[in-house]
Amino acid sequence: MKELRDRKVELFRQTNKDRARLLISCKDQPGIVAAVSNFLYEYGANIVQSDQYSIDPEGGLFFMRIEFILPDLKRQEEKLEEAFAAIGNQFRMDWRFAYAYDIKKMAIFVSREDHCLMELLWQWQAGDLVADIAVVISNHPDLGPTVEQFGIPFYHITVTKDAKNEAEQKQLKLLEEYEIDVSVLARYMQILSPTFISSQPERIINIHHSFLPAFVGAKPYERAYERGVKIIGATSHYVTDDLDEGPIIEQDVLRVNHNHNAEDLKRLGRSVERSVLARAVAWHLEDRVLIHKSKTVVFN
Amino acid sequence: MKELRDRKVELFRQTNKDRARLLISCKDQPGIVAAVSNFLYEYGANIVQSDQYSIDPEGGLFFMRIEFILPDLKRQEEKLEEAFAAIGNQFRMDWRFAYAYDIKKMAIFVSREDHCLMELLWQWQAGDLVADIAVVISNHPDLGPTVEQFGIPFYHITVTKDAKNEAEQKQLKLLEEYEIDVSVLARYMQILSPTFISSQPERIINIHHSFLPAFVGAKPYERAYERGVKIIGATSHYVTDDLDEGPIIEQDVLRVNHNHNAEDLKRLGRSVERSVLARAVAWHLEDRVLIHKSKTVVFN
Amino acid sequence: MKELRDRKVELFRQTNKDRARLLISCKDQPGIVAAVSNFLYEYGANIVQSDQYSIDPEGGLFFMRIEFILPDLKRQEEKLEEAFAAIGNQFRMDWRFAYAYDIKKMAIFVSREDHCLMELLWQWQAGDLVADIAVVISNHPDLGPTVEQFGIPFYHITVTKDAKNEAEQKQLKLLEEYEIDVSVLARYMQILSPTFISSQPERIINIHHSFLPAFVGAKPYERAYERGVKIIGATSHYVTDDLDEGPIIEQDVLRVNHNHNAEDLKRLGRSVERSVLARAVAWHLEDRVLIHKSKTVVFN
Amino acid sequence: MKELRDRKVELFRQTNKDRARLLISCKDQPGIVAAVSNFLYEYGANIVQSDQYSIDPEGGLFFMRIEFILPDLKRQEEKLEEAFAAIGNQFRMDWRFAYAYDIKKMAIFVSREDHCLMELLWQWQAGDLVADIAVVISNHPDLGPTVEQFGIPFYHITVTKDAKNEAEQKQLKLLEEYEIDVSVLARYMQILSPTFISSQPERIINIHHSFLPAFVGAKPYERAYERGVKIIGATSHYVTDDLDEGPIIEQDVLRVNHNHNAEDLKRLGRSVERSVLARAVAWHLEDRVLIHKSKTVVFN
Repeated sequence: MKELRDRKVELFRQTNKDRARLLISCKDQPGIVAAVSNFLYEYGANIVQSDQYSIDPEGGLFFMRIEFILPDLKRQEEKLEEAFAAIGNQFRMDWRFAYAYDIKKMAIFVSREDHCLMELLWQWQAGDLVADIAVVISNHPDLGPTVEQFGIPFYHITVTKDAKNEAEQKQLKLLEEYEIDVSVLARYMQILSPTFISSQPERIINIHHSFLPAFVGAKPYERAYERGVKIIGATSHYVTDDLDEGPIIEQDVLRVNHNHNAEDLKRLGRSVERSVLARAVAWHLEDRVLIHKSKTVVFN
Repeated sequence: MKELRDRKVELFRQTNKDRARLLISCKDQPGIVAAVSNFLYEYGANIVQSDQYSIDPEGGLFFMRIEFILPDLKRQEEKLEEAFAAIGNQFRMDWRFAYAYDIKKMAIFVSREDHCLMELLWQWQAGDLVADIAVVISNHPDLGPTVEQFGIPFYHITVTKDAKNEAEQKQLKLLEEYEIDVSVLARYMQILSPTFISSQPERIINIHHSFLPAFVGAKPYERAYERGVKIIGATSHYVTDDLDEGPIIEQDVLRVNHNHNAEDLKRLGRSVERSVLARAVAWHLEDRVLIHKSKTVVFN
Repeated sequence: MKELRDRKVELFRQTNKDRARLLISCKDQPGIVAAVSNFLYEYGANIVQSDQYSIDPEGGLFFMRIEFILPDLKRQEEKLEEAFAAIGNQFRMDWRFAYAYDIKKMAIFVSREDHCLMELLWQWQAGDLVADIAVVISNHPDLGPTVEQFGIPFYHITVTKDAKNEAEQKQLKLLEEYEIDVSVLARYMQILSPTFISSQPERIINIHHSFLPAFVGAKPYERAYERGVKIIGATSHYVTDDLDEGPIIEQDVLRVNHNHNAEDLKRLGRSVERSVLARAVAWHLEDRVLIHKSKTVVFN
Repeated sequence: MKELRDRKVELFRQTNKDRARLLISCKDQPGIVAAVSNFLYEYGANIVQSDQYSIDPEGGLFFMRIEFILPDLKRQEEKLEEAFAAIGNQFRMDWRFAYAYDIKKMAIFVSREDHCLMELLWQWQAGDLVADIAVVISNHPDLGPTVEQFGIPFYHITVTKDAKNEAEQKQLKLLEEYEIDVSVLARYMQILSPTFISSQPERIINIHHSFLPAFVGAKPYERAYERGVKIIGATSHYVTDDLDEGPIIEQDVLRVNHNHNAEDLKRLGRSVERSVLARAVAWHLEDRVLIHKSKTVVFN
């Protein structure tokens, strides 16, 4: 069992050898691109993709993502970062190197509905989702056998109103134990506490089954049916303390009509939820998403 | 000038000779379709299109739209309606015949933004929008010359906070004078009073520049930008006393990204607003929209 | 193993108790709808959905699909069909009753790519695809274990250039043995012989990985990349002797750009192929697709 | 009349003061981005947007577009270009500076259908299409009055089979006289000769009313109807000697069904043609399109 997961991770690591991304955000000012590209050029890095975005050219904010290949990168990580620190200081940057061979460790939280979980597992198995899906955590036991077929450990942690705190402590312990980099709420039907969320900043991705900000909160399909909308949607966003108000990563929609009742909307909506969540998670894994206040910059 | 409008109406009338639609809503019960189709068969009507919808097959509601052609229809209107009344009574139907050659008289309300107005005028000129655009009313004088080029009368009625009632009285007088069947708010930036609205039930169509129920009210593009949505939209709906809460006729969306500022959203959104409003108005004109409580059944 | 499949079929049968569809195509003529709706009314059938389409109102063709519920339908099948034959003769109809509780037996043909197969199996498992997936046939052994996890028999039949005929004989024998109603080619990378196809008229559904009629034949993604298209697509159609020329059931598309190479198109296209095929198969299973010459009428 | 056009151009010029784009294509090699960004930094240019694309990181091709603002740019054009030539030579680049205040002079070719023409004129009037629409040329006189209302000269040049060459000579003379930078075929129903095309390399944009490469050539909507496609489309591309085979700039699609006949497809397709052509032309005007062999790189 465990073999399948280990083999996947090893395969991903090999495929991404020598590949990294440099992520920068800072106050916009002249000379940033020149300084950064000179730096990478001198190190012999081959720039594969480069994206930048300025909120307001004059005196605003600057965001950049550079994907590059540098032979024998793993051995040069430390040297590279030390050298880049000078540029970072000069421009007062928030910066980090993300090494693509450091496959991100992912936890998936799930309740009873399996479609979002299955899409992730399936894309992972097909090699399209480059992550180490280290653990699946659920407040119901139902999906255990399915998850274990993929060689991934499954933990059933009951969540009750009175013992929510204890449950979250167990969950956090698992995240620590498995050294989780990112948690994905794949239709996990529990609201996380502020304590939990603040311990995982910008590291929890949720799928909400509506086109936010329409239908924040519970039962969005029922409310979409009641309102008589002609299009339904799904939204993937980072989780913050404000329910369904976190920075949006991706959204998509689907046309419906008066023939569809609330059950139809649920059924049809599943395919949108699946693809929206999978895209958002993939972009996060490839370090394509930068968060700025309540919004995202997605370089895709 | 006036000639262009008159010629259009005459042309539409000829094209739609002998064509009508029968619209029915009632409690669902056995035998409706049989009774209605027998009736039309006996009159020699040729059914061109037939649509029906039951909210809940057992004991729910039933909606039907039948489009038919009946030679020499104009002379038989009265006889047909008298005869159908028996069926209507039997099934306790809300029913009406809508004769396609009775080209609907339309008023367009507009402020300063011209894109929705122009789309309607243009589709009307191309023969795609079968209406008698009888009058354009605006709270600003700017678009007068443009409208008059199309041979359509333009009225500038100033709307001020203190004299809103007087302005609405003038508007209602125009609607009466021109025997208006439907009013279209083509980005008309004034809120109509309950008195005005209740005098025009199910006869006012609005375009809202957001994907309702997201961003009800003012400045939806600015708020969409602030929220960081990845998709924007537009919604056309019937106007009721609850702002932006009336029955939705049509919606559509457009993908955007972090590169787009609020001004970009406005510019890009214009094309969605145009097409959504034009579709909704066309469906209304073709008697394809049935209203049921706060929702629509659109047979398209 | 076999239990899972049996349980699914039994469940579907119960859910669809007393439900049937009447499918009609004939020359357009007055009185059809009246006759058919009278007939169903007299039998006490409750019409759930009714769709019709006339190619040309005067002297053209008429297509109709009526979905109805009739208590204790199973015992009345024979009587109903005998009685309807009179109407069928009168209007020279092609007609058939399709009983929803007669769950259709499906064979899936697959090669090495699993995404279309998995989408079907998954929707079937979720109860969204109401079929008896009776057998999966492949020219490669790879997907056997996956299929068998779903309790579905898997047959590996090697297809070689020289022994294609023998392979097809084996396949046809399986279709007969399992009493297959419809075969789905879920990225089955072999061209079927005219003999095979003519033995399964209007019963084979294929997914082609392009937006037909663009890129008929082999390697559509590579050719889409070479041509520099900005949108790719997928097409599901009935199989006829003319390669990729059969009646189209459903198509969908996806936006791409210069950043995507042929491998990216393949990867992105998988999601479109999956959803297009699943929709087409579902519509076929619900008897929503009528074939007329080289085209389809889809009542959805 | 002429005033309107002159005022537009002056307005566009003011809005785009000090703004330019640098366009580069060359063999991919280390140090390009560093060299270019250093150069612009030293000149005090403020980079507004920067996009790059490498076909194959190792030994492939490199494309770049940098949009920047440089105070008092108009006076420094010559100096800037002379100085950049050294970098251009070093990396053997194809390069050019495109100054945004040099508003491009556009000719529109049209026949009888007005929808694509009107969309361009309208977006131009709204300030969304930044061009100097210097002349409209048609093989029919019908649209003259409409065009002249916009203050734009209209030329009717009859095109006959026998005198096509003479007609093209007249057209080319107009292009020269008005110093045209780009010609847009807005549903111009004539095939241009190789001589004409080769005199305007990469300067003629066409709209084809199908989703290319499906339905190359005449009557695409009729053929789409015959084939029974479920989605129709439109394609904007540069014109080359191979009919409908030039580099694609933009495509879009629209869902249709069996209810739509060929006339419906034409009517519905108009809205897609309009928006696809307008987007393609806007991108060309903003120097966002680089041509590489038979394909485009669109930085949008």
